[in-house]
Amino acid sequence: MPSNNGIIFKAVPDSYPVPGEHMEFVTREIDIENFPLADGEILVKNQYLSLDPYMRGKMRHPSAKSYSPAFEIGKVLDGRGIGIVVKSNKKDCQVGDYYAGLIGWEEYTHILANAKSGIESLANEITKSNAPKSYFLGILGMPGLSAYVGLNKIGKPKKGETIFITAASGAVGQVVGQIAKIKGLRVIGSAGDDAKIKYLKEELNFDGVFNYKTCNTDEKLRELCPNGIDIYFDNVGGETLETVLNHINIFGRVVACGMISQYNTKTPYGVKNLMQIVGKRLLIQGFIVSDHYQEMGESFQKEMGEWLKQGKLKYKEDIVEGIQNAPEAFVNILTGKNFGKMVIKIC
Amino acid sequence: MPSNNGIIFKAVPDSYPVPGEHMEFVTREIDIENFPLADGEILVKNQYLSLDPYMRGKMRHPSAKSYSPAFEIGKVLDGRGIGIVVKSNKKDCQVGDYYAGLIGWEEYTHILANAKSGIESLANEITKSNAPKSYFLGILGMPGLSAYVGLNKIGKPKKGETIFITAASGAVGQVVGQIAKIKGLRVIGSAGDDAKIKYLKEELNFDGVFNYKTCNTDEKLRELCPNGIDIYFDNVGGETLETVLNHINIFGRVVACGMISQYNTKTPYGVKNLMQIVGKRLLIQGFIVSDHYQEMGESFQKEMGEWLKQGKLKYKEDIVEGIQNAPEAFVNILTGKNFGKMVIKIC
Repeated sequence: MPSNNGIIFKAVPDSYPVPGEHMEFVTREIDIENFPLADGEILVKNQYLSLDPYMRGKMRHPSAKSYSPAFEIGKVLDGRGIGIVVKSNKKDCQVGDYYAGLIGWEEYTHILANAKSGIESLANEITKSNAPKSYFLGILGMPGLSAYVGLNKIGKPKKGETIFITAASGAVGQVVGQIAKIKGLRVIGSAGDDAKIKYLKEELNFDGVFNYKTCNTDEKLRELCPNGIDIYFDNVGGETLETVLNHINIFGRVVACGMISQYNTKTPYGVKNLMQIVGKRLLIQGFIVSDHYQEMGESFQKEMGEWLKQGKLKYKEDIVEGIQNAPEAFVNILTGKNFGKMVIKIC
Repeated sequence: MPSNNGIIFKAVPDSYPVPGEHMEFVTREIDIENFPLADGEILVKNQYLSLDPYMRGKMRHPSAKSYSPAFEIGKVLDGRGIGIVVKSNKKDCQVGDYYAGLIGWEEYTHILANAKSGIESLANEITKSNAPKSYFLGILGMPGLSAYVGLNKIGKPKKGETIFITAASGAVGQVVGQIAKIKGLRVIGSAGDDAKIKYLKEELNFDGVFNYKTCNTDEKLRELCPNGIDIYFDNVGGETLETVLNHINIFGRVVACGMISQYNTKTPYGVKNLMQIVGKRLLIQGFIVSDHYQEMGESFQKEMGEWLKQGKLKYKEDIVEGIQNAPEAFVNILTGKNFGKMVIKIC
């Protein structure tokens, strides 16, 4: 019988999750032939699983409310993924079709009739497209849409403006920077590793880059943004956000996409200069990408697809093979050890 | 000869300014008959001077940049005011006309030809209106416009929503609350004095009120906002903002009008839960009212004027007589000892 190994959520972490302690690899088997499917259900053989920082927010006690439900202790972790239908009891869904949506951190996932991830329509795009399938979990999926929505709807970029992007080589950041370049902005990015910095400068042609672990962010922003910052695409929050508020221009926009510096600490950083919001007439706005898929998904696929075909966009992926390696890969995202969009290749 | 006493900016305060130490009363005289006026200039006898919290931000070292220039040491302080033209060398400006604009903290002000306060057109409104003249420094002036612009353009109120207002009996807060009531919102306000609380409840019919000095803000918000907060009209910043971010609803809006809790401290409060901005898709936006006078001044005067005539709006003023009392009155705003819009009646 084929294996259906997976990763169980074992305990709520206080700080960084630890493989084995908070996420446990379990070996299981699956009897596909006799697998029972109710009306409208399918069984999917998983190909790619997306690992993303937001998942850390779901590793919490269920009493703490948030936009996305907490993971359940003892159950398989889940996330967005791509797979192939291997058994179907659903109308218009054939064996061999692509599936895009919520899957488990496992080899096969049983998709219930009422499952709704909001990205089901991606399956059609995958079928039509020549792009690597994994791109639909990255530049052509939710991270890419995060970049597109955050930059366009909140950042409202104008040619000649300066944008600063943190976690700039990450799944979202690298797309933000490239779209901003296409739109004629001066693009400054930071990351925590010299190889990433080199990639941003040499491959993506960022106008200015620095390693925030070895440079002083305040000094670097003064040097690299002589005309200040108009848009800050914030993936990290905390002290960096505080520093940026001192460099941001009047009528600046802060796209609050994520605050990864605050996800694994019990003593969050207190931002002391929010006064700048008033004096500089700043806009700080958060968003969750799934709110925007219905509205912007189509224009996103079209525009990004064109840019990709024209060679205007590149995308760096960090593909790790084997579901058993997912826990460590996930921790690597949180500590910044990944390089590019983290995807688990399951089969 | 008539007196032209005034208040000089004497030294930059570290914390709360102290009358005599940072603001000095000086006695002077003025020879109106022989007062020289260049082309386009006028001499104004001041009637009312508006004192506002933003002035604290101008009592700084000139090296610290901000939206409004620093006060100059040794010069008379200034602010928005209303006066009567007593001498004119300006076309279309007659002796006896109303003047609205920037004046000194003094009895007579020499208005230069290129003076531009952005509120000159208020003089026409004052001439036409039956409302008390001082209202044009309050509910019909910049504080009223702050309420109108902040609530409508940033808060985007919808009937049935809940708004929370800090400094709710202040120059801006009391207007925000009353407009919000007109628009069908549930209105909750806080202030630091039981008389203010009573006024908000009994005179302005707020739905819920509390004294933040004697109650726990977190508990009170839980009790008074059972459906959460949709709009926070922030006049204070700091720890209260942090508490509100825990109570604000998904897609909530924070109107960043002022952060008076942070104006007189060298150790600003660090807000630790900005993570909520992402998860709750919050919008936090600052604004400076003078940016909006051109665009919204007319609709503001029309709508507010109607509401006032219909008795739908009340306005509490704290009128202090005599320019010599301006320094103490100003400190009272910063410590919350004023009750209603602070105006100095000069003559």
